[in-house]
Amino acid sequence: MSNHVSPTPPILLTIAGFDPCGGAGIAADLKTFAAHNCYGIAAVTALTVQSTQGVKSTHITPAATLRAQLDALAEDIAISTVKIGMLGNRANAAVVAEFLDHGKFAHVVLDPAVKASLGGADLLDAGGVKFLSEELLKRATLITPNIAEAELMTGLEIRDVAAMEAAARKLFEQGARAVVVKGGHMEKAIDVLFDGTELLALGGDRIKTENTHGSGCTFASAIAAQLASGRGLHEAVLLAKTYVTKAIERSFVIGKGAGPLDHFYRFHQEPAPRGTHEVPQHGLHPAAEPATHR
Amino acid sequence: MSNHVSPTPPILLTIAGFDPCGGAGIAADLKTFAAHNCYGIAAVTALTVQSTQGVKSTHITPAATLRAQLDALAEDIAISTVKIGMLGNRANAAVVAEFLDHGKFAHVVLDPAVKASLGGADLLDAGGVKFLSEELLKRATLITPNIAEAELMTGLEIRDVAAMEAAARKLFEQGARAVVVKGGHMEKAIDVLFDGTELLALGGDRIKTENTHGSGCTFASAIAAQLASGRGLHEAVLLAKTYVTKAIERSFVIGKGAGPLDHFYRFHQEPAPRGTHEVPQHGLHPAAEPATHR
Repeated sequence: MSNHVSPTPPILLTIAGFDPCGGAGIAADLKTFAAHNCYGIAAVTALTVQSTQGVKSTHITPAATLRAQLDALAEDIAISTVKIGMLGNRANAAVVAEFLDHGKFAHVVLDPAVKASLGGADLLDAGGVKFLSEELLKRATLITPNIAEAELMTGLEIRDVAAMEAAARKLFEQGARAVVVKGGHMEKAIDVLFDGTELLALGGDRIKTENTHGSGCTFASAIAAQLASGRGLHEAVLLAKTYVTKAIERSFVIGKGAGPLDHFYRFHQEPAPRGTHEVPQHGLHPAAEPATHR
Repeated sequence: MSNHVSPTPPILLTIAGFDPCGGAGIAADLKTFAAHNCYGIAAVTALTVQSTQGVKSTHITPAATLRAQLDALAEDIAISTVKIGMLGNRANAAVVAEFLDHGKFAHVVLDPAVKASLGGADLLDAGGVKFLSEELLKRATLITPNIAEAELMTGLEIRDVAAMEAAARKLFEQGARAVVVKGGHMEKAIDVLFDGTELLALGGDRIKTENTHGSGCTFASAIAAQLASGRGLHEAVLLAKTYVTKAIERSFVIGKGAGPLDHFYRFHQEPAPRGTHEVPQHGLHPAAEPATHR
């Protein structure tokens, strides 16, 4: 039997925590990468004890083990793009900074997971938050905080889109090369994108569902996958917003709390794209059209 | 915007180690479940430091953390089927036995990961192997050792299909309700299935590739997914053999060693099935036709 090796897809590394219920963290990232015809690898920063009802406890990976995982991967595999999520503590954040300094990556998407959306468990210690804001931020090509994370990293209080925009500008001044402030938890689900030049408010209706477990991780991973597949920043963010919106619409009723998204909704409802490198260009969802806001 | 929740798919739990390069362990299991339109959740028994070139070290999850992960999942989510892979040590094997005793699962597929195929790193300590052979075995509805694992669990030396069949019978006598001895590492890639009544040798040509990283995990997970989707044992094993064969044929050249399978080859080459519960009924690969062997 002959061997029909598949063409090598873009390879993304996620550095994040593991969520046993598979909705968030590394499982969500790997599913999102696969749904975009990318190949995902992963370094585990923490094991969370978690269900759809929230994070009960976290078991942070020792820094030496995190470093060993990263070294083994980097020695072996040509990594295009890095996506960073939960780090656990300052020691692991420092390992990641060192890793980024010794590698060359097309894109580094930093999704600063600081607190669990559900239940509010700490995903990063205070020293880690400081290190993230002062050091990791500068090493990212894109940072994607939600409102609470943007507040923590800027000291601003964010109650409306104008304040989201101010936070995006401030994070840029603090060293981020591009910023998406995720407004998924706001009433209108508007996201703000700032690349140092243009400031865009991306509209979106809030979907009537509690099944949004892992939507923040998924959005950031989808942006990373689109960037790794060659899209420009604006297009990557818009396509990712469409993707996460549809994956939330098709979410599963699993567990007693916030259910997970259907990361593979495209495969479940329409013919799959042909070829491994092709990223589907579905028509932009009307809600995801950019609206220049100021 | 209305909410189009997806129908709840069969839910499978994998209890296994984490492989950072994504080819084996939990990542392979979750991808396999998703490729079969099932939803996967996971409890992490160990973090491995691993690349396509082999396992460098393993960091076993403390038993209390493994138990906490399992309890959080079982309290929250209706689990159909459990798939067990790398356990690390006896303490974790005992946690899993206790978990199985307190739950009701349609199927329990035990894939006894004892040694890494590449490099031979220990994935289970000696006490764990004994516990597996004497205790866990009895709690499984199906056990899927490869040749080396079947040798270790039976004390038999296995050099041919007849010896594989003898090992399958012996494992049944030791308490397994059904056995698949995986011959993927043999020259002809024949698998032996014994359910206590019928003994089948399932033929298959060995595919000319080194990219078989995680094929054992994937085969066992695919069987579990087919069982959870309602197939009988024989059909589940045949469909899983077809799946893993095609996923190996479409494997990726990633890393310097044994590359990973393309778990989503179906989505990459043909229209996806409609509906979440539907498991694709591709024509059986000729190599996967059953041949009654004695």
